[in-house]
Amino acid sequence: MATSPNSPALHSWIDIPPGNDFPIQNLPFGVFETEQHGPRLGVAIGLYVLDLYAASQYGFFEDLTELGAAQPKVFRRGSLNAFLRLGRPAWRAVRQRVSELLRHDASQLRDNEEAVRECLRRQSEVRMLRPVKPHNYTDFYSSIEHATNVGTMFRDPANALLPNWRHLPIGYHGRTSSIVVSGTPIKRPNGQRKAPDEAAPTFGPSRQLDFELEMAFVVGTGTELGTTVPIAEAEEHIFGLCLFNDWSARDIQSWEYVPLGPFLGKNFGSSISPWVVTLDALEPFRIAGPAQQPAPLPYLDQAGEHNFDINLEVALTPANGPETIISRANFGLMYWSMAQQLTHHASNGCNLEAGDLYASGTISGPTPDSLGSMLELAWRGTRPIHLANGEERKFLLDGDTVTMRGYAEKEGVRIGFGEVRGTILPAD
Amino acid sequence: MATSPNSPALHSWIDIPPGNDFPIQNLPFGVFETEQHGPRLGVAIGLYVLDLYAASQYGFFEDLTELGAAQPKVFRRGSLNAFLRLGRPAWRAVRQRVSELLRHDASQLRDNEEAVRECLRRQSEVRMLRPVKPHNYTDFYSSIEHATNVGTMFRDPANALLPNWRHLPIGYHGRTSSIVVSGTPIKRPNGQRKAPDEAAPTFGPSRQLDFELEMAFVVGTGTELGTTVPIAEAEEHIFGLCLFNDWSARDIQSWEYVPLGPFLGKNFGSSISPWVVTLDALEPFRIAGPAQQPAPLPYLDQAGEHNFDINLEVALTPANGPETIISRANFGLMYWSMAQQLTHHASNGCNLEAGDLYASGTISGPTPDSLGSMLELAWRGTRPIHLANGEERKFLLDGDTVTMRGYAEKEGVRIGFGEVRGTILPAD
Repeated sequence: MATSPNSPALHSWIDIPPGNDFPIQNLPFGVFETEQHGPRLGVAIGLYVLDLYAASQYGFFEDLTELGAAQPKVFRRGSLNAFLRLGRPAWRAVRQRVSELLRHDASQLRDNEEAVRECLRRQSEVRMLRPVKPHNYTDFYSSIEHATNVGTMFRDPANALLPNWRHLPIGYHGRTSSIVVSGTPIKRPNGQRKAPDEAAPTFGPSRQLDFELEMAFVVGTGTELGTTVPIAEAEEHIFGLCLFNDWSARDIQSWEYVPLGPFLGKNFGSSISPWVVTLDALEPFRIAGPAQQPAPLPYLDQAGEHNFDINLEVALTPANGPETIISRANFGLMYWSMAQQLTHHASNGCNLEAGDLYASGTISGPTPDSLGSMLELAWRGTRPIHLANGEERKFLLDGDTVTMRGYAEKEGVRIGFGEVRGTILPAD
Repeated sequence: MATSPNSPALHSWIDIPPGNDFPIQNLPFGVFETEQHGPRLGVAIGLYVLDLYAASQYGFFEDLTELGAAQPKVFRRGSLNAFLRLGRPAWRAVRQRVSELLRHDASQLRDNEEAVRECLRRQSEVRMLRPVKPHNYTDFYSSIEHATNVGTMFRDPANALLPNWRHLPIGYHGRTSSIVVSGTPIKRPNGQRKAPDEAAPTFGPSRQLDFELEMAFVVGTGTELGTTVPIAEAEEHIFGLCLFNDWSARDIQSWEYVPLGPFLGKNFGSSISPWVVTLDALEPFRIAGPAQQPAPLPYLDQAGEHNFDINLEVALTPANGPETIISRANFGLMYWSMAQQLTHHASNGCNLEAGDLYASGTISGPTPDSLGSMLELAWRGTRPIHLANGEERKFLLDGDTVTMRGYAEKEGVRIGFGEVRGTILPAD
C-alpha cells in the first residue's frame, strides 16, 4: 500500500525552508507561465514549481490510467478546468505520484539532472495565473459573526440576523470576468453613491473602499441540470480551496443593493490566490463547525467534522511603510460548511460546473481583532485602525496593499495557502 | 455602393411564407447541429438555415478580409463566442454577404444545386443549440411598470419605487450554467419556502412557479478590466438580441432574497431563444424611450432613439388544451435603455466579455393585459388568469408550456425573433 501523501513522516529531497507553506504534504495545484513558454499546470513544492507538463513529457505519469488520453495536453492549459473534469481519481493519482517523485528516497526524478532542470522552476522565476476559468461564481454569507455585525450596524442590533439566516446558507451570484489572480492591482472604482444626508446621488471615486477576507472552494466535478447533491456526497465535488479577497465599495454597495443585492459595489474586482490546496491535503484539519440552532432542514443536516481549521490573517501595507497585521481569523468558525453551501446551491437542480468558485463570505471571528473587513474593524469608521507607521485608516487609501495569508498546522506539518495580494490604484 | 441588408425593397430567391419571422432583412445568427454533423453557425432565412460553415467551404466568404484566418473554423463551433470576438466589421461583412447571396437576383448560390443542398437545411430538420456560451449573465430590472407593480404588491403602494430606481438601472448577477435553449423542459424546483403565516420554512416543490417575459442582449465586443464605456459608444458593444424567459419560483425567492438578492428562486433555469437578431437588423425600429425624471447623471445621459419597438407576447398552453395569449407587451417602453444598462455596468471598470448576456428584467406594460409575469397578471393570486380551455391559473402547473414570441414590423418588413418555449416537468 502506498504511503499517504499526507503522512507527517514524509519529507522531500527538495529543501523546504522552515515555515514554508508548501511541504511535500501539501502539493497544491496552480497554473504558471514563464518567459520561455505559455501556461502550464504546476504543483508547488517549497520554493519551486513542479511543471506537470514537463513531468508528463518525461513519462512520470505514463502509467496513470486515470489520466487516459488527456496527458500531456491537459497539463498545457490556461486553467485547471480540463484537469478538474477528469475527476477525483485523476486528481488523487497525480498528487500521489508527485508525492512519490518528491519524497526523499525517490531517485527517479532527483537523479535525472536534465529532468530536474526541465521540471522544476523557482517560483520567483515564473508568473502565476488565475488557477481556474470560473464560469460561475457564488459568494456566500456564512460567518454568523459577520452577518451579525453587518445587521447590527445597518439594521437593528436587537434583531441583527435576518429570519432566514439560520435556515439556509444565504448566497448570491457574483461576477466571474473580474476575478483576478493575486498581485493584480485593483483600480478604485467610480460609481454612484449617496450618503443618507445627501439629497441626490453623485458619481465619482468610491470613498469607502474595503476588502473582505474570504476563502473560496473550487468545484472539481460538476452536475447535470435538474439533479441535486445529497449532503453526504457534497465534498466529493470539491477539488480544493484558495484565499479570496472580495473587494467592496461600501458606498456604491449601500446605494444600489436594495432590492436585488450587491452589483457594482463588488464586481470591479475580486482577487484569488494562485495555488489551490486540495481538500485531500486538508483532511487532517477537519473540525466540527459551530452548533446549528435551529437544526437545519434534513437536506442540510450533517453530522461529523466538515469545517477546516485554517488560520487566516490580513496585512495592510501603506504605500510608504511597513505592513500591519490588522486581523487574525479562523475558517473553522464558519456557521455553514462548504458541504452545506454546495448541497443548498444544487438543491433546486441548479447545475454545477468544473472550475466554479464558491466563496465563503467575509470571515469574521468573535473578537474585535478577528474581523474580516475594514467596515467591521473600524466599525463603520467610528474606531479607525492604527497602522505601524502611525497612520489611521477607516477605509482603504490609494497605494494601500492588502495581503491575506492562511495555513493549517498540526504535528509539525504546515499546509499553507500562500497569499492573495492586491494594491489599490487611484480611480480614473 | 452595396444595398443595405435592411432595405424593404430586398427580396430573396428563397420563398418566405407570409408572416414568417426571418425575411432577407433579418438574417439572425444561431448555432445548430444535425444528425450528420456537430455544431455549426447558421443564419435563419424563411423556413431554412444557411449553414455558414458549408458556405465558407464553398468559398462564398473567401474575399472577406474581416474574417482573417478565422474561417472556416469560426463557423464550426458550439457557440457564437469566437465569431463575436472578431468584431463588428466581421459581423457586418458576413451579414452583408449572406444578404447578397440570398437576394432574388443573385445566382452564385441559387444556381449551384450541390451548394444549395449542402448550405441550406430546413429548420425542422436541425436542432438549435444555445447561441452563446455566456461567461457572465446580468439581469436588470428596467421596466418601471414591473418595478412599480412589485413594489406595490410587496412593499408600499404609496412608495412603490425604491429611492435608487430612477437614478440607476438596478441589476444583479444571475447564473450562467443553467441558461438553456428554447425547447428544453424546466423541472419544477424544490426549495425552502416559508409563507408569512408559517412558523418555520419547509423544503419541497415550489408552489409559486412563474415566468418572466424578458429580452436579453448579447455582448459582441468586450472590454478590459478597469476601463469604462462612454454612453455614446455603448451600442457598439452589442451584437444582438434574443427572447429570454427568467423562470422564477416566487416562494423560494421571497424567503431567500433579503438581503443579497435572488438566488435559488431563479437559477434552476433560464430559457433563451436560439436566434440572435442583430442590432443592425433592428436599426429601422429605433424609438425614444420614456422621459426620464429626474434626468440621469451625466454618464448615463443620452439623447436620441435608443429603445426598440418590439412587440412581445406570452402564450400559456396547458397539457391538454390550446394555447391562450395571456400577455402582450412592448420592449420599447423600457425605462432604461440597453446602452444605459451597458454603460452603467462598465462604469466601475467591470470588464465585459464576448457572449455575455444582459437581460432586461421583466417587461410589463401599463395595462392589466400587458404584464410580464404571472405574479402581476394574477396579481399575487388574487385575480386568476382564465385559459381558453376554461381552466384558471395563479401560477404555473406541471405540464404547462410557456411560449414567448416577438417581432418588429414596418413598411411590410417583419423582423421576428422566433420563440422561446419551455414546458414544466414535475419536481423530483
